[in-house]
Amino acid sequence: MKPNSVLIKNAGWIVTQNSKREILSNKSIYIEGNRIVEVGNPKSEADFILEADHKIVLPGLMNCHTHSPMTLLRGYSDDKSLEEWWFKDIYPVESKFKSKHIYYGSLLACIEMIKFGCTYFADFYYFLDQIAKAVNEAGIRCNLGQGILDVETFEFPSKKIAFLIAKRMVRKWRKKGRIKASIAPHMFQTTSPETYEECAEIVRKYNVLLQTHVCESKKEVEFALKNYEKRPVDLLEECGCLSDKTIAVHCNWVSGDDIKKFSKYDVKVVHCPVSNMKLGEGKIMPLKDMIRQNLTIGLGTDGCASNNSLDLFEEMKTCSLLHKSHLNDPTAMPAQKMLDLVTVDAAKVLHEEDLGSIEEGNKADLILIDTRKPHLQPIHRKHTVLSNLVYSAKGQDVSDVICDGKLLMEDGRITTLNEEEVYEKVRRILLELFR
Amino acid sequence: MKPNSVLIKNAGWIVTQNSKREILSNKSIYIEGNRIVEVGNPKSEADFILEADHKIVLPGLMNCHTHSPMTLLRGYSDDKSLEEWWFKDIYPVESKFKSKHIYYGSLLACIEMIKFGCTYFADFYYFLDQIAKAVNEAGIRCNLGQGILDVETFEFPSKKIAFLIAKRMVRKWRKKGRIKASIAPHMFQTTSPETYEECAEIVRKYNVLLQTHVCESKKEVEFALKNYEKRPVDLLEECGCLSDKTIAVHCNWVSGDDIKKFSKYDVKVVHCPVSNMKLGEGKIMPLKDMIRQNLTIGLGTDGCASNNSLDLFEEMKTCSLLHKSHLNDPTAMPAQKMLDLVTVDAAKVLHEEDLGSIEEGNKADLILIDTRKPHLQPIHRKHTVLSNLVYSAKGQDVSDVICDGKLLMEDGRITTLNEEEVYEKVRRILLELFR
Repeated sequence: MKPNSVLIKNAGWIVTQNSKREILSNKSIYIEGNRIVEVGNPKSEADFILEADHKIVLPGLMNCHTHSPMTLLRGYSDDKSLEEWWFKDIYPVESKFKSKHIYYGSLLACIEMIKFGCTYFADFYYFLDQIAKAVNEAGIRCNLGQGILDVETFEFPSKKIAFLIAKRMVRKWRKKGRIKASIAPHMFQTTSPETYEECAEIVRKYNVLLQTHVCESKKEVEFALKNYEKRPVDLLEECGCLSDKTIAVHCNWVSGDDIKKFSKYDVKVVHCPVSNMKLGEGKIMPLKDMIRQNLTIGLGTDGCASNNSLDLFEEMKTCSLLHKSHLNDPTAMPAQKMLDLVTVDAAKVLHEEDLGSIEEGNKADLILIDTRKPHLQPIHRKHTVLSNLVYSAKGQDVSDVICDGKLLMEDGRITTLNEEEVYEKVRRILLELFR
Repeated sequence: MKPNSVLIKNAGWIVTQNSKREILSNKSIYIEGNRIVEVGNPKSEADFILEADHKIVLPGLMNCHTHSPMTLLRGYSDDKSLEEWWFKDIYPVESKFKSKHIYYGSLLACIEMIKFGCTYFADFYYFLDQIAKAVNEAGIRCNLGQGILDVETFEFPSKKIAFLIAKRMVRKWRKKGRIKASIAPHMFQTTSPETYEECAEIVRKYNVLLQTHVCESKKEVEFALKNYEKRPVDLLEECGCLSDKTIAVHCNWVSGDDIKKFSKYDVKVVHCPVSNMKLGEGKIMPLKDMIRQNLTIGLGTDGCASNNSLDLFEEMKTCSLLHKSHLNDPTAMPAQKMLDLVTVDAAKVLHEEDLGSIEEGNKADLILIDTRKPHLQPIHRKHTVLSNLVYSAKGQDVSDVICDGKLLMEDGRITTLNEEEVYEKVRRILLELFR
């Protein structure tokens, strides 16, 4: 028996998400250290055995876009116009956030993500040290994007300092285990083309990813056209910000030419259906056209102030419903593709080659779902497993979570953090903040 | 201490849904028999005390449209064109359903509904005796609509027999407690105007509700225009089927004139956003226009073959997202209105005057949600309670359910049925059916 080994024993179904998209029945998974060593009928004994008779095992889900500390503003403001929501409600509070708010907000997000089966998230925020601290304690993975703006805000005393922070972050976490860093210019309404050019340099110099909001709203496109006489995607190209390391988030208002440009540069795309619908962005990201042009696409929840949860199961179903409805085509966005967007495809978006599928040699990020629930019954055949995962399950159905070979949640209980303490701490720091 | 009394003690929040839409903090609810006797600071002792410190109490949710036995076909066929889905996959299996399939399918639905906080559903199916048996055992409420078609199908050996069954059902359950019956002509593609006229007679004679699918698809409207030279709603009027007892389900393709007619006759409307999106119906029910014209509207999940769950929390959020997105207006369909659609408004749709809100004298149908979960934190103020219920909670968050004064679920465990036995029985009868 090797130390730090786990055996997931006799799983009802293993949704491998391998290249053949195999779903195995009554097989086991043997994990040693932080790697999957065998999928099938392993004979090795393990430190820890997870009986999985009635359970579905799938790769840990990957959230390609969020702002984790914004859990603090969940439900704080809803059903308002974008202007009122942001300027009157969200921003005045967010601008008072100090280190402790970032830390506890992110810790709350980590708890929610673990509970909902998400083992990896791409964040886009500030005070990254605080987020890293929370992620370290929680035991999941992330890619932390240092937000870059020209506007002086709470998060951003001056661009120069922000770049210094960004470079330090990137250097510190470039090669580290569960945490990586990236550069995250905000959008053209708040960040100048010159700043985007500097970001492109960081990408080249440090070989890191670049996350940015692109074509989220009509106003953003109009702003770019008015001020720079170019559409945002053309501006990104001009600034040297289109490459396979670029992650373009939202993309509701992209044109056919924009999609071609993404394809030419192998730009990665992130779709946030729930957030975009909730904010009424006016257009829907042309997901079908993008898939047809072989773009690599992941799903993101966006922050809690505009979603209001971090549930990738909900994101999968809503994504499918939105496009079926919008295209008047019930065959659009089938269950298998939805699951791809939060596993194998998401791993490609985030340049994580040994994540996103259950295969020997891959890192051991796995989640389990107990099927002994009315809404996950019956299971007619293998297709039903997929269908029940995408169209019936929700984050709350996740029972166990393994990340980097470690058990972070067992039968609904998180092993790394004291949930109730975090809720109480969050309550207190918010009482203080609003006083 | 009175027998059959329950005290919900010191609830974190009581979302009353009374006419002022009050949300009370740290109050209690005293129930005697099947009625709410006091909301506030009752001094009475009770048989059973439910401690509710961290819980939100709300009225039991009401599902205004489903086909409960179709849980058996959950995940059996998805992502297909309407024709392929229905004729190749669903109908060939459904047509083999016998009494036991209806009974166990409906029992599975009842378990799911209790778990997800739904205490009342309007069903639209056949073999109603079997559904009634399941509902009786589960302990929830329903209004069972006897499906009426002219086409000879499995469910429907001949129209004459169906009407005999319908009349028997209606007489049997007209005045009964938790179960009521109604008449449910299918739609104009399968049911003739003459048959609709006979249904209208039953409504008048027995004073019962009439449920029917109306303007769900473009084809249905075209069929009516081609065969009867009238739109479906005009045909309903001609057949005497428009009244305050009429429940018009789906209504994706209604015109402005149709809405006016609904308003004139006080017709009730049921919206099924998830099912309509999943089947890609091509148009979205004009909910905002209908609300503006003061129509009474409820939400329905539709059957599990096209949803694929019976979760009214998901239905509320999806409804809000769909219309915000479609109307390009983040202020559309706010949280409070969404909750109304599954409580007070639904009660009006179903002509249940003492359900849908937590008020003294009302029937005791109540559900509780434990807020000690990451996605239901923080709670800034009363508004956040509503927002978290609609935009963050899912059916899985319901902890306790009371219906007709009886505790049907305590801390996630159903008291009236053996869940695992039902799953196993469903598995076996389906194995048989597919052999």
